[in-house]
Formats: sequence, C-alpha cells, structure tokens
Amino acid sequence: MTEVRIAGVGVTEFGNAPERTGRDLFGDASDDAFADAGVSRSDVESLRYGNFMGELAERQGHQGPLMAEAAGVRAPATRYESACASSSAALRSAVRDVRNGEEDVVLVGGAERMTNLGTAGATEALAIAADELWEVRQGVTFPGAYALMAQAYFDEYGGDRDDLAHVAVKNHEHAIGNELAHYQDPISVDDVLEAPPVSEPLGLYDSCPISDGASALVLVSEAYAEANDVDAPVAVTGSGQGGDDMALQDREYLARTPATNSAAKEAYEDAGIGPGDVDFVEVHDCFTIAEVLALESMGFYETGEGIGAARRGETTAEGDLPVNLSGGLKAKGHPVGATGTAQVAEITKLLRGDHVNSDAVADGTVGLAHNAGGTVASCLVHVVEEVVA
Amino acid sequence: MTEVRIAGVGVTEFGNAPERTGRDLFGDASDDAFADAGVSRSDVESLRYGNFMGELAERQGHQGPLMAEAAGVRAPATRYESACASSSAALRSAVRDVRNGEEDVVLVGGAERMTNLGTAGATEALAIAADELWEVRQGVTFPGAYALMAQAYFDEYGGDRDDLAHVAVKNHEHAIGNELAHYQDPISVDDVLEAPPVSEPLGLYDSCPISDGASALVLVSEAYAEANDVDAPVAVTGSGQGGDDMALQDREYLARTPATNSAAKEAYEDAGIGPGDVDFVEVHDCFTIAEVLALESMGFYETGEGIGAARRGETTAEGDLPVNLSGGLKAKGHPVGATGTAQVAEITKLLRGDHVNSDAVADGTVGLAHNAGGTVASCLVHVVEEVVA
Repeated sequence: MTEVRIAGVGVTEFGNAPERTGRDLFGDASDDAFADAGVSRSDVESLRYGNFMGELAERQGHQGPLMAEAAGVRAPATRYESACASSSAALRSAVRDVRNGEEDVVLVGGAERMTNLGTAGATEALAIAADELWEVRQGVTFPGAYALMAQAYFDEYGGDRDDLAHVAVKNHEHAIGNELAHYQDPISVDDVLEAPPVSEPLGLYDSCPISDGASALVLVSEAYAEANDVDAPVAVTGSGQGGDDMALQDREYLARTPATNSAAKEAYEDAGIGPGDVDFVEVHDCFTIAEVLALESMGFYETGEGIGAARRGETTAEGDLPVNLSGGLKAKGHPVGATGTAQVAEITKLLRGDHVNSDAVADGTVGLAHNAGGTVASCLVHVVEEVVA
Repeated sequence: MTEVRIAGVGVTEFGNAPERTGRDLFGDASDDAFADAGVSRSDVESLRYGNFMGELAERQGHQGPLMAEAAGVRAPATRYESACASSSAALRSAVRDVRNGEEDVVLVGGAERMTNLGTAGATEALAIAADELWEVRQGVTFPGAYALMAQAYFDEYGGDRDDLAHVAVKNHEHAIGNELAHYQDPISVDDVLEAPPVSEPLGLYDSCPISDGASALVLVSEAYAEANDVDAPVAVTGSGQGGDDMALQDREYLARTPATNSAAKEAYEDAGIGPGDVDFVEVHDCFTIAEVLALESMGFYETGEGIGAARRGETTAEGDLPVNLSGGLKAKGHPVGATGTAQVAEITKLLRGDHVNSDAVADGTVGLAHNAGGTVASCLVHVVEEVVA
C-alpha cells in the first residue's frame, strides 16, 4: 500500500451565488486545486464527484462527465451521493483506489447549487435525504428531525439551549478571517438565544445556512509525488464509514449516532491511531446539537459530556481539542456536496500552515474530518495527517 | 489480490410495477441474491447501490441506508449514480475493494422505479442524463440523441433501418423463455420497420421499454468463499471505465463511442484477455444503434462493420458471438439503476448453466458486460468468467 497524499486543495467562497451553475462552481474549485497541486490535468485517472440535489436544483443528473469537463479533465468520472456526506463517499473510494495502486492521480470533490431554490425550496430539497414515506410525508424536515434529537438529548443527559449557543458562538468566532466562509462576523450567546425559533429547541443560529459552493482535492500516490517532485506534505491515512436506520423512528436512541461511532472506529484503526492522538477536528455541525453528538460518538467525550465542551472552552481555538476551526458548517456554510472535501481542504491548510487559524494547531499533526448524511444514517470519517515535516 | 467471486445473483421481473417502490423492488432482488448465495447477511461489509432517477420518480435521495434496510443488511451503504450505468459504477468500486482486501463480502445492485411517471414523464426524467443547458433545454431527449447517432452512422458507414431491425428481432428472440424479461414474444423485421416512428430513423421497436425492476449481486473474496464453503464458480476478472464529453455537439464523431473503447481496453487489460477471448456479450442496447456502436468500440467489429452483424446471424444465440442472450435492454427491459448488475447476473447464470439460453454458450467461459450512461458519456465494462469448472 502506498500513502495517499493531498497534492492540492481548492475551495470556492461559500455563500449566495444563485446565478452560478454547479459546473461554474466546480470549475473554479478544481482550477484552484490544480494550481495548488502543480499536477498536470492530463495525469488525472479519474474524477470522483459528490453532489446531492442536482436533480432538483438544476434538473441535472449524470454529473460525472459534466464535471470532468468543467474541471478540464478527460478521465472517467463517477458521481457519489450520500446526502450531505456525498463528497466524503467520493473521497473514501479515491483513497482506497490510490493506496491500493489502482490509480495514482485522482481528482475528488463536490459542489452544490442551493440558493437558487430559495430557503423553503432548499429545505424541501434537503428533505429527500430523509425517508420520504415515513418522515418527509409526515412533515418532518431536517430542522425538525435535529430538534427531536436535541430535545431527546436534553431529556436524557441534560444540557440546554445555552450550551448549544456556545457551539454556534465558537464556530462563528473561528470563521472570522476565513475569507471563504459564508459568515465571518462574531455572534453572542444572546444573539443565538434570542434568534427566531426554527424548530424548538433549535433557533436560527443553531442552524447552518443554505450555501452555494464547491471544493476539490488532487490526491496522488506517494510514489507519484516523489517521482514528480510534488510538494504534498499531508496524507489521508484513515477512512471509515458507518450506516444506521434511515428514519429516526427506527432507532433505539435519538440522541446517539452509532453510524459516527462505526465510522470513527474504522478510521482510527485504519490510521493506527486513537481519539487521543487527534489534534483537531472538523465535524458535521449542520445544527449545533450535531457537533455534540459527533464529538461523543467519536470518543472525545463520554455520552452526555459533550454538551458542555464549547461552553467550557475545550473546543475553541485555544482549547485542547479545537473543533471546526474553519467555522464549521454553521459559519463556513454547507453547500452539501462540497462539504466533505472542503473539510479535508481546511484541515490540509491548517496542517500546512496556510490557514488563518493555523497558529491554533501549530504543534498538531493529526486532523479528523467527520461528515454525516441525513440524521446520521450515513457517516464518513477521515484521518488527515501531516506526514512530511 | 484475491479473486472476486459472484456468490449469488437476484433479479426481479422487469416490467410494469408502478405501485411498487424502489425499496420493494430492491428488497426482492436482494432476497433472491442471498438465497442464491447462501451467504449470511450479517457478513456483508457494505452495500454499493446504483440508482438514477429516485429524486424525480420517488422524491427520494440518500437511498444507500434505505436500501440497506430493504435488503436486511446493517452495513455502510453508498449510492452511485452514473446515469444508465449506475449499478456498474457501484460494481466497479466493489470489485476493486474486494480484490484489494478492503472487504470480503459486498452487496451490489440497483433498482429503478420508472413506470409511475408514465412514458412522457419517464422520458423527461431520463433526459437529465444529458446536458441540461446545451441539450435538454434545446429539446433533445434520448430517442432524438440516438437517432442523430444512427443517422450519422448511416451517412458515414452505410447500413439502414433494416439492419437495425435485425438487432431488435434477435434480442426479442433471445428473451423468449426468459421469465424475467419485460417482453417475451418474438417480433419480425416488418414489425420493426412498420412500427410508429419515435425519432427518425428510430422507431418504437428500435427502443427499449420503460421498466421497473431491481438486481443484486453478492460478491465475496475467493478466500471467503473457500473458508465458508460458498459455491461461487464465477468471478469478475476485469473492470474498465471510460468517459467522454457530455453533449453530442462537443464530440468529434457522432457515430463512435470512445468511452466504450477506453472502458473495454481497460477491462481487457485488467482481465488479461482480448476481444478474441470473449465468448458472449451483454451490451447496452437502449436503442438498436447502441448495440452496433458498442460492438465496434469493444473491438469485435471494425468501425462500419458492426451494423450487419445481427442480419448476418453472427450475434444470435447460434452465432459466433452471441450478443444479449438475456434479451438485452431492448426486450428484457431497462430499469436504469438495475441494468448493469442485471447484465452481470444474466452472464453468471449463463455461465453456471441455469439460464434458459445457457446451451448457446455451453462451451463458453468468458462473458462481457457493457453498460453505458447518457449518449455514452460514461461507460463501464466488466469481464465475467467461469473460474471453477
């Protein structure tokens, strides 16, 4: 097995760009990734592309070949769809194929055009990540589903809206100076608590925004990097995937996410590390409660203990385990198909020292990316390490 | 590398089942595959699932975990979408991961619910496999696109509607007795020539039907098969993928399919064979002309020579290279997401001797599955061999 190196990363600004097509967005992200990588497009052996709602937002399926064209790559292309974890599913397959010698150079990424649907339209489109027959048709959309999970957490383990507000405040704080983030302004706990309710106990500032955007990674084998003198100090060293029942009603616990547990366990084993070796984490905080559940399920906190992490300052840039130094989905934005590979791009920049928050992890070498689909019916976790000092 | 064995196959009847959901269909196909395999569901390490138009036909995305539930499998699940080649994209990833030792038991398959949309609705939904901005919006749907390809072929290399009619007649002939096929009745050349025109020069009987259906394969490593005494005499020994420009207008030739050429070349090399070693083929005959283009691009005929193959009897059950012994998409049906793995299931049964047309390939050991997306902007080819006598 060869090491899977990240030769280059590209991420567009996340935000409102309703007039830009998915191919416009992904073309920009891949341009940036190739410029960063210094790798020739003609060496690319495949594109793995993540997208969730192109059929509804652009009436466009079969985006693989379309996005290969947008990226200027003449190579076989496949689209992966795993709801909000789509580009991480694409990444997993690329990582395995590179490390097993199937391919040496792979373009991986994703994009999502969302704001052209409007907030209500995008919320309805996002809902197809839940069970249409048993959830959506009964009126459950994702704010409602995560509100059920938050309420169940409060009931079972304690904690309150104030605890969750600290998650939002922290992630907005981290996004200050991240020029690609959807929101770059600080907010206060009072702002969160006084924001309009979306679905009790979650309010507007407990929720990530609807964003347009794209991200791309150029992955190369260690052998290719060495033979071609490609500067690629960061590697994907572990991959894990977990699954759960699609609908919340079928699960034993509303306030636990076993798919994350499985994905993290596999990723740790794959990389030969444990949670204690991780220096910082990007987690899937589509709603504030989701960050709490993720940290617990990945072994950073005991069940019921994660809710106070942000309030206690443990997951801030100054804390022991900085979480979502990019701003997270909450402040950086969540263009669904782009999110997974954008997390890995942020971690790469944090490790390389060219991120606004790199100082917070100056001594760190191990980052973790956690990307979930639906109410964590799907989960992908990747370990990203600096392997060349 | 270990050999990738096909332990079991399951295919539903292809046809009109508008009231059945995708999960109903895939549940049935996977039940059959597990029964055929004699492999425990609890050993399955992942589901790779192909589906194309679930967002439009059922307003359901994120089908991975949903279909894992339908199949009774608690394992990570990913949906692959490559238009009409979706389940072959899923298969390729599974084959690579099994042979590289990442996983030992994988469920692969796909399903499509289509007839609930009606013929016009399904045609519109299928159109999202073309370029929305530069093809669909100009009024091009797939019958029109393939008609352009057929007309270009006639202009460039000769041949006529009568030649294509023999492709349809042959594939209908092959479907007689295949109780899973959408159409099991013979048709005549006159039936084809006198059928209502769909898009000149293609008529109704040059076109595959709109069908509902599902298919599933249980893949296991050779080591697993031996350790668990699983009877799995057939293996996937080669995989290839090719890509091309999405829109016809961007291509150099309308009557050639270079994505098939690339996919076949890679699959042959991967399996260590050449076209001369292939005993029979299942090809993606969504329209009659597509079968001709596929046979030429895979090296069975020189460019311009494939058009007469069916008329000359070379590709019939009695011919040197039987093509589409299942009936093909044309007569067996084409529930899009199910098609790729259904081709492999048919080849498996043909090789094992439990197919209605097995006698036609009694001495054969090598089958080829060709599955295309859009106007062959995507193509997947797999080599399927009998490896245990």
